[in-house]
Amino acid sequence: MKKNLLVAQSGGPTAAINATLAGVIRKATECSEIDKVYGACNGIQGVLEEKLVDLTEKVNTPEKLDLLSRTPAAALGSCRFKLKDIHEDDSQYQQIVDIFHKHNIGYFIYIGGNDSMDTVAKLSGYCKSHGVADIQVIGGPKTIDNDLCGIDHCPGFGSAAKYIATVFSELEREITVYEAKNVIIVEMMGRNAGWLTAAAALAQGRNGSVPYLIYLEESPFSMERFVKDIKDRLEEHDAVLVAVSEGAHDETGQFICEQGQGAKELDVFGHNKLSGTGKVLEEVVKEQIGCKVRSIELNLLQRCASHIMSRTDIEESGKLGENAVALAVAGESGKMSTLTRVSDEPYEVSYSGVDISQVANLEKKIPASWINEEGNGVTEELIAYLKPLVQGEISSVYEDGIPKYLLLK
Amino acid sequence: MKKNLLVAQSGGPTAAINATLAGVIRKATECSEIDKVYGACNGIQGVLEEKLVDLTEKVNTPEKLDLLSRTPAAALGSCRFKLKDIHEDDSQYQQIVDIFHKHNIGYFIYIGGNDSMDTVAKLSGYCKSHGVADIQVIGGPKTIDNDLCGIDHCPGFGSAAKYIATVFSELEREITVYEAKNVIIVEMMGRNAGWLTAAAALAQGRNGSVPYLIYLEESPFSMERFVKDIKDRLEEHDAVLVAVSEGAHDETGQFICEQGQGAKELDVFGHNKLSGTGKVLEEVVKEQIGCKVRSIELNLLQRCASHIMSRTDIEESGKLGENAVALAVAGESGKMSTLTRVSDEPYEVSYSGVDISQVANLEKKIPASWINEEGNGVTEELIAYLKPLVQGEISSVYEDGIPKYLLLK
Repeated sequence: MKKNLLVAQSGGPTAAINATLAGVIRKATECSEIDKVYGACNGIQGVLEEKLVDLTEKVNTPEKLDLLSRTPAAALGSCRFKLKDIHEDDSQYQQIVDIFHKHNIGYFIYIGGNDSMDTVAKLSGYCKSHGVADIQVIGGPKTIDNDLCGIDHCPGFGSAAKYIATVFSELEREITVYEAKNVIIVEMMGRNAGWLTAAAALAQGRNGSVPYLIYLEESPFSMERFVKDIKDRLEEHDAVLVAVSEGAHDETGQFICEQGQGAKELDVFGHNKLSGTGKVLEEVVKEQIGCKVRSIELNLLQRCASHIMSRTDIEESGKLGENAVALAVAGESGKMSTLTRVSDEPYEVSYSGVDISQVANLEKKIPASWINEEGNGVTEELIAYLKPLVQGEISSVYEDGIPKYLLLK
Repeated sequence: MKKNLLVAQSGGPTAAINATLAGVIRKATECSEIDKVYGACNGIQGVLEEKLVDLTEKVNTPEKLDLLSRTPAAALGSCRFKLKDIHEDDSQYQQIVDIFHKHNIGYFIYIGGNDSMDTVAKLSGYCKSHGVADIQVIGGPKTIDNDLCGIDHCPGFGSAAKYIATVFSELEREITVYEAKNVIIVEMMGRNAGWLTAAAALAQGRNGSVPYLIYLEESPFSMERFVKDIKDRLEEHDAVLVAVSEGAHDETGQFICEQGQGAKELDVFGHNKLSGTGKVLEEVVKEQIGCKVRSIELNLLQRCASHIMSRTDIEESGKLGENAVALAVAGESGKMSTLTRVSDEPYEVSYSGVDISQVANLEKKIPASWINEEGNGVTEELIAYLKPLVQGEISSVYEDGIPKYLLLK
């Protein structure tokens, strides 16, 4: 008997999470084992609330599948919802199983980051320990942070990296326009891993000779060295570009955004507040060097800039979705669809499944050997790792000059 | 006898200023009246310092011309340099004329905004009053702010507007992902005119039904009404997108970024400092409404985002450059190359010259009749004005996944 497939999305938006969703729908509609494809709105929370949409109906042409691939953020909506500890209260798990049985769902694909893989681990674990053999639970990876274990790199990261490198290319042209000492500081997302910040390195030396300073949270930040780094570069150059992670911190673990008498900073109502990391560094340059300086926080712009995506990222994201369905149909459960890098040049990857225990609640950081000795730049190995991920372009579909997306809920 | 042409760029970078430069080079190399095309580095300052580059040599293929069109910021460099008052000291003007004669320069094209048109006015005025008949001085318009008079719209503005509308399209997908009351505030450039902020309206209603609130500096800002506007929208919707100009100010003329006890805000060294307008509004929403809120400052990103340009803007920018050369060769001086809108649908423009006195040191603001009564949105007339300017796409040239530009100095 044919079963239905349910797919949901979770965690923070990316430019690629809908490409994975499109891959799931594409593959599922081809599988003779699968009847209908349902989507749950707002992740596992929507599953519990039975907020299901019929994707077989909603995404019923190749054009719509393609448009979905180019739509930013999570078309099914997302949630930040953690299932209860299975040892304390397993009623939610049974509730989900009951809902699955009610809708004849035999395959569940959950697309998300670390937290979502925790949900996959718990739910598949519950099914196994309770003899529920007719539900296969598979994770689809996703996070711009690139910090998932068990996978060479994460869907969504390549597009964000391409966006960041592109922004640095443009800012390098911008900063060389005037003849004056000038510093631009750009703050990237990534509380615990510096992958996004490292992507700035892809632009260095490509369109000029402006020195880049790259500070990752994997290497302790020293304000004294930062000031010296800038001063040294300004001796020989007019301009310096700085890339810094929001999570940059000193040796004691204190975040930069909490430093520099940050506690004295008041918001408009007189309350204490934290500046952004870039803002703190801007003030330091202003005060201690005195040259022209500006800080830019890439903020939400970096995570769903679908107008400049990496074709490699979007294609791989789609294939990881297809592979997730293939794993589920093959009877696997408690695994995450993954890719392994076979070679850098020519760039080649292979697709498989990795046990979810090797992914859930773990974090992958940049290896210390990929950061330079001075802690202000990256090595050739890191660039070689990043380079294939930003290859090729794919942009939004424009209608009357404005991007057009596929809306599912 | 053939004469040489000199071109220079001035003012803030845009995505389109090099397309105008490319247009100047293209037309000049076709003109039988013109021998060599020189570029002055860093605007009029570079003219005074005789920092000239031979563009006939540097940009000698159609491919290079095309690459120059897609290169952001000012490839020749820019300056913020005002010539001295001609009545107090005219030595700089005679110096420039001498340099022009020395290099057999008969045509000078100066590409820039209001200040640069002031230079064109003064220099052409000097030539006329001093009987220098062999030097034609023509202005090439440029500014993302769209505040030049004597022209329907400014080169560079269409691309910035398209970038802003695209960002709003993406943020609208982003803000609808979670099920929670959510406000995103985006701050655009434009100290004295709200054109860039108004461009957000192009995205509204195109990919969803999130309400937009648009506050332009042409309409006095009331904090009380702002809070009410947000509260009203959140009653019926989960999400609100706010577009605000950096120069938004209240009825007394006080900037929002100076309000809300802003004076109490201290930087990391304990000095008073101004928050951004968006940041101030973010704090107000946090305090008075208490929902999820985030502010984003588009900052430098909006002025040279050449990875997403308006084809209409880039093509018109090129033609305005060509037209500037045609005007100069026809013996005109003290004019700005301009375009007039012939019709909206089909969109059509015509090119001509406008007397520089109608442009220099003037500012074009959004007409009051194009702002809605509540002062929190724009009218259909404004959208009809903006719409043709963002039509068509043209992106960077990518090499190995990263944008590639043409460098001239």
